[in-house]
Amino acid sequence: MPRVHNFSAGPAAMPLEVLQKAQSEMLDLAGSGMSVMEMSHRSKEFQAVVDGAEAGIRRLLGVSDQYAVLFLQGGASLQFVMIPMNLRRPGKVADYVDTGSWASKAIKEAKVAGLTNVLWSGKGDNYTRIPKTQELKLTPDAEYVHICSNETIGGIRWARFPKTNAPLIVDMSSEILSRVVDVSQFGLIYAGAQKNLGPSGLAVVIIRKDLAERAVDNVPVFMRYSTHVADGSMYNTPNTWGIYMLKLVCEWLEAKGGVPAMQKINEEKASRLYNAIDSSSYWRSPVEKESRSIMNVVWRLPSEALEDQFVTQAKKAGLVGLKGHRSVGGIRASLYNAVTLESVDALVAFMKEFEKKNG
Amino acid sequence: MPRVHNFSAGPAAMPLEVLQKAQSEMLDLAGSGMSVMEMSHRSKEFQAVVDGAEAGIRRLLGVSDQYAVLFLQGGASLQFVMIPMNLRRPGKVADYVDTGSWASKAIKEAKVAGLTNVLWSGKGDNYTRIPKTQELKLTPDAEYVHICSNETIGGIRWARFPKTNAPLIVDMSSEILSRVVDVSQFGLIYAGAQKNLGPSGLAVVIIRKDLAERAVDNVPVFMRYSTHVADGSMYNTPNTWGIYMLKLVCEWLEAKGGVPAMQKINEEKASRLYNAIDSSSYWRSPVEKESRSIMNVVWRLPSEALEDQFVTQAKKAGLVGLKGHRSVGGIRASLYNAVTLESVDALVAFMKEFEKKNG
Repeated sequence: MPRVHNFSAGPAAMPLEVLQKAQSEMLDLAGSGMSVMEMSHRSKEFQAVVDGAEAGIRRLLGVSDQYAVLFLQGGASLQFVMIPMNLRRPGKVADYVDTGSWASKAIKEAKVAGLTNVLWSGKGDNYTRIPKTQELKLTPDAEYVHICSNETIGGIRWARFPKTNAPLIVDMSSEILSRVVDVSQFGLIYAGAQKNLGPSGLAVVIIRKDLAERAVDNVPVFMRYSTHVADGSMYNTPNTWGIYMLKLVCEWLEAKGGVPAMQKINEEKASRLYNAIDSSSYWRSPVEKESRSIMNVVWRLPSEALEDQFVTQAKKAGLVGLKGHRSVGGIRASLYNAVTLESVDALVAFMKEFEKKNG
Repeated sequence: MPRVHNFSAGPAAMPLEVLQKAQSEMLDLAGSGMSVMEMSHRSKEFQAVVDGAEAGIRRLLGVSDQYAVLFLQGGASLQFVMIPMNLRRPGKVADYVDTGSWASKAIKEAKVAGLTNVLWSGKGDNYTRIPKTQELKLTPDAEYVHICSNETIGGIRWARFPKTNAPLIVDMSSEILSRVVDVSQFGLIYAGAQKNLGPSGLAVVIIRKDLAERAVDNVPVFMRYSTHVADGSMYNTPNTWGIYMLKLVCEWLEAKGGVPAMQKINEEKASRLYNAIDSSSYWRSPVEKESRSIMNVVWRLPSEALEDQFVTQAKKAGLVGLKGHRSVGGIRASLYNAVTLESVDALVAFMKEFEKKNG
């Protein structure tokens, strides 16, 4: 079987060169006589891996020493719990913006634990747009403001980030390293790795060091950011394979020219696909134009039956992962960094063919 | 570089056949045209992987339908938090037995969150033995009793498990699948994967289904066992690579004859090494004989300087991971399932040689 064109929303396509490197080092990493999976996380061999991964993230995103970079487990979902547990002190309020499925999940956990103010919700519009700045009535003494920068399911993203007095916390799972951002405008950035960073089972947290100290006394040791900052992500055994793969992904990305180069390719990929969608009334984008994601492109066909056919025939043609999330239906193509222009062109060509046969 | 003899305490040696299989499937799992890391966790291809892993654990350990088998993230350390959070209701007591470093870490988290009764502590004896049954004064209405079945750092293990009225909860990280156990005597078994099950970043939890429902209302959704039971470990994206590797390890283990066959080999491996230690006063085991672990064998040399030399020269001879934990010093050889008899024989031969030169 040749390699497919993989448009999965996550876990998702990884760079072929990264997989080949991991394959070649599987039985012996750097002359150690063992796999990276077999090494003590306290060995100097593995410390070089985790240092390399952290340095890669710092260089690619321009992360200053004011911030710690953590490699944690539990994905974004554990962050939904850790953020209010650490950063919202008893009796205080946290602000959230409800832009879709992922923001909603974060809000659900925040509400279990304390005072949560939802500033705005796109639910009434089926999550098809990002709010304008003037629609957000920030709570004056909020502990933080939480947003999801790109909604993987709805296919919308914050083109510009809001200015807030309280620290701005952002779930960047589905677009980290895909576009240039100024880290200094955020108090905390977090991302599950399984879209743009590496395999699943790993989350990257970039936290302003003063915020890592905010937790009150009754927070469990393992759930405190300060624990993981103090131990350099080694309080307990981390996901060593995931960190290794993330380091390889960072190296690949730097060789490609880093985030600015990647953003340019990503914009070109998204533009080719949106142009194809906009070029015919056979396809329909449900998303407001200014809110369109460049990572997760969603669209509809004239009927659900045709959407099913589209997904089935595409799979036969070697284009996989195109079924929209089960909660919303339709078609979705995820265009993460590892998805090539060639894959997008193959998808656009398939769409034209499909429309000709079924239009 | 040839493959080394790997005695690491975890992450640890993995079966060569498992690594080779993962290597061969890296770019294309089962004709899918992609790596297992690139697949949606909701795809039927990956569902087959997780079903296979669960079936493997159930067959190997004889887990009945009364129990759920979960694949979670965060290692044993997150279980230290989840167990009291889910299983100890407000105002009630949990019993713990302090047999060493790992039991202590579990106790630390239990104490942050509520009433914790430490029934017995081996700290005064430097954690060199397991208590006798009659030394444990169980709390009559405890919510559960927590033990660590094998202390990786101290090198001691419960040869027989205590009988308790309250559900018995066991951290089996460093010996799961190494010996035959009767699952029905436990309320919950948990284990970080990075010793006998696969790579780090994954924990297996085997929980009696009624206990999974015990959590009170203010427990975060992600922290509830019931959440993960209801969604078959797919509430959020699991560590897909880890689950895949665990499935391969289970298949390897079944081909070798399962847990009874493995126990026999493990007892033989431990016996050869303990015999070498006991055969000369040059080596000294600090551990009570009846409490000796068959997974983690610890011993001392006449001086710390000689211990350092032993570790350095062993590494040069291709025997790695022998340094005792930094908290206790000395030598430690971990003899998990993937460590071969040949590796143990090589270690014993090296010891005889070392004693001859330095004795």
